Amino acid sequence: MAELILGIAGLGHVGCGLIHLVEQQANLRLPGQLKIAGVSARNRHANRVADVSGLTWFDDPVALAVSPEIDVFVELMGGADGKAREAVEAALNAGKPVVTANKALIAEHGPTLSALAEAHSVDLLFEAAVAGGVPIVRALRDSLSGIQVQRVSGILNGTCNFLTTEMLARCSSYQDVLEEAQALGYAEADPTLDVSGMDAAHKMAILSAIAFSAELDFPKVEVHGIDQLDLIDLSLADRMGYTIKLIAEGILTERGVVCRVEPKALSHSHPLTRINGALNTVQVEGEPLGAVMMTGPGAGAGPTASAVMGDISKLFRPGVRSPFGGAPHHIRRQFVAPFEDERSPWFLRAHLADESGAMAALSDVLATEAVSIDQMLQDSAGSDGSAPVALVTHVCSSADIKRAVARLEAQDTIIGFPRFIRIEIG
Amino acid sequence: MAELILGIAGLGHVGCGLIHLVEQQANLRLPGQLKIAGVSARNRHANRVADVSGLTWFDDPVALAVSPEIDVFVELMGGADGKAREAVEAALNAGKPVVTANKALIAEHGPTLSALAEAHSVDLLFEAAVAGGVPIVRALRDSLSGIQVQRVSGILNGTCNFLTTEMLARCSSYQDVLEEAQALGYAEADPTLDVSGMDAAHKMAILSAIAFSAELDFPKVEVHGIDQLDLIDLSLADRMGYTIKLIAEGILTERGVVCRVEPKALSHSHPLTRINGALNTVQVEGEPLGAVMMTGPGAGAGPTASAVMGDISKLFRPGVRSPFGGAPHHIRRQFVAPFEDERSPWFLRAHLADESGAMAALSDVLATEAVSIDQMLQDSAGSDGSAPVALVTHVCSSADIKRAVARLEAQDTIIGFPRFIRIEIG
Repeated sequence: MAELILGIAGLGHVGCGLIHLVEQQANLRLPGQLKIAGVSARNRHANRVADVSGLTWFDDPVALAVSPEIDVFVELMGGADGKAREAVEAALNAGKPVVTANKALIAEHGPTLSALAEAHSVDLLFEAAVAGGVPIVRALRDSLSGIQVQRVSGILNGTCNFLTTEMLARCSSYQDVLEEAQALGYAEADPTLDVSGMDAAHKMAILSAIAFSAELDFPKVEVHGIDQLDLIDLSLADRMGYTIKLIAEGILTERGVVCRVEPKALSHSHPLTRINGALNTVQVEGEPLGAVMMTGPGAGAGPTASAVMGDISKLFRPGVRSPFGGAPHHIRRQFVAPFEDERSPWFLRAHLADESGAMAALSDVLATEAVSIDQMLQDSAGSDGSAPVALVTHVCSSADIKRAVARLEAQDTIIGFPRFIRIEIG
Repeated sequence: MAELILGIAGLGHVGCGLIHLVEQQANLRLPGQLKIAGVSARNRHANRVADVSGLTWFDDPVALAVSPEIDVFVELMGGADGKAREAVEAALNAGKPVVTANKALIAEHGPTLSALAEAHSVDLLFEAAVAGGVPIVRALRDSLSGIQVQRVSGILNGTCNFLTTEMLARCSSYQDVLEEAQALGYAEADPTLDVSGMDAAHKMAILSAIAFSAELDFPKVEVHGIDQLDLIDLSLADRMGYTIKLIAEGILTERGVVCRVEPKALSHSHPLTRINGALNTVQVEGEPLGAVMMTGPGAGAGPTASAVMGDISKLFRPGVRSPFGGAPHHIRRQFVAPFEDERSPWFLRAHLADESGAMAALSDVLATEAVSIDQMLQDSAGSDGSAPVALVTHVCSSADIKRAVARLEAQDTIIGFPRFIRIEIG
């Protein structure tokens, strides 16, 4: 089985999340086996949620990046410059593929790093840099390479989306909601990078460079944040039919690629108005596709680490993969028929004969089969002399509802066939 | 520059759509150049939207599949058996990678074809077989390989979703809406494959095999369609707080993978209830991700052909790609700053001094700067003696609104700074 040896620099939440995933790799769908040859972080003795005591420690991430022991350098330190940039450049120069979650690094030095990766024929992958667990980078770069993109837009900062959602929902000031979000861990102690729009701008600049085959030129991105928004703006806009959200967009124009982040007033019918709380979402519009929208958790240790892992999984050699993923010939599970003991609430519809006792007969059958009623709705009888009745049951098994329906079908007071449909609460 | 030579079997809407994309490849983001060495279809002289007269014709798709002239065999004939299967097997046996949009073929013979592809170390790619233009196959297989999937669910048949959406919206019977959909081209003349749930079942079986590293065992999939649904079921469920839709799902259980397609009653708060009309959507739930949802056009020549093209683009050698996609060093466009002449409607908020003439002064400034008012909302003055006013403008340029706001800021009758926000209608 193929093997890939990682060096991981940066042991914050995402780095520790990645170490957990490596420990649990038997549960994942990787095409080979991962090992960790070494780790690096600023403080060797910091409290961490992952145990790194058994891993070789490098004080200097650059030394880890060029270590002959590693196949892949994983950069999770953050920051556009300094050691992160130095280590990534060192790895690429040493011919080692790099996986990074560092949006600032890629947004501000993407062209240089990209040229370096191409010059050394190694991969530089950064799925985790944009929209956390939403796999938009590779989808846009590869799967959607057959479309001419006209526009990429979306909500790329969960903190800002949470703040604007909550301000309006709770009629609270920006400052009050921000303090609460900080207490809950939804906003950083220093929220500047988020609320200024800079974080979303880094992400959208990366997506625009991919979508439009454009040279990433970050200083051209226009950036406005939400820190100047007042509750009165949100509430008056809402009363006039608009929801204000921080929107990032990249647009192809005849003059070039316009990339910007700003609060926008979206009409209430706009699909992005439904993306509430800390979610991220990206919409890609182009020909001959129409539009595709992807939504998911834009941050957090788990989603971001899983995006890093998705990139790592692409670096196994050989390049040919099992068509259904995972390692060749690796079948772990079997399809099975659905179970009769599976439990759920059910929607049940029947037509009752318009005669006394019809409802009592229905109720009796259900009670006998241990199907209890949560809600019921009965209309008056139509011209055919039958009265439609619908009910929602409490949770019961497939076997129970099927037995009950089979008995109802045999009742004289039931016209035609009752229908039962599984209920899913969203 | 790398080159890849295609043989295309099947020249229906998707095949012709692919030929159009190859003709326009300069507008796409492929890492190399595509050529078509030959095509095949049942009827050489059929009327087609693409001109195939200049392409080498093969009467037999199997001969095309093994032709030494081609690098990649593209199968767009359809059907689980017969010539489609024969040609795909022949291509794989000849060591040629295959790209197909054929969901029936992959759902019913996936394990055999997958083993054949692995045995010959060639790719078998089928992004276009599931959810048309939504790039879920590769996302699930590769990008999300670092998560443990618990459930895959979604709306995978646009025809069924259109029919149930329209029945309820227009209070029409299944038969009436079906006939109208057929007239509009949203449903096939023989809709059986769609309305029986079989098409969605093919797609979900493929996704489940990928998501759970499971052996695809199509006969185990439980399939119910929408052809037995009555309007009364949809309308009674709606009145009780539920929307009935055809839902496909794959669930990981302790006993194995349960895969099924059935109408389900979703609570009105469920995110899938918002997916109306002919869209497809897939939700992937797992650890440590949470949930990701992807929505887009599930059928149609353009979306499906672009998905085929996304697969083809992955077959260029060498495997290392430019980090931002496309061919190495290929920069086609530049970022530019947003334009002052860009036009849109605007949301404008100001606080007026609570004195006579304040509103007139505001209106005058806007009129002078050619900013005309579409809607206005003014509240009574608060305790600070200023009255908030919000308005929505007709379309005007960024320059116009900025000039107007700069002049408003200078007015004595405007308290503090007015805020202007671009409007987007969704």
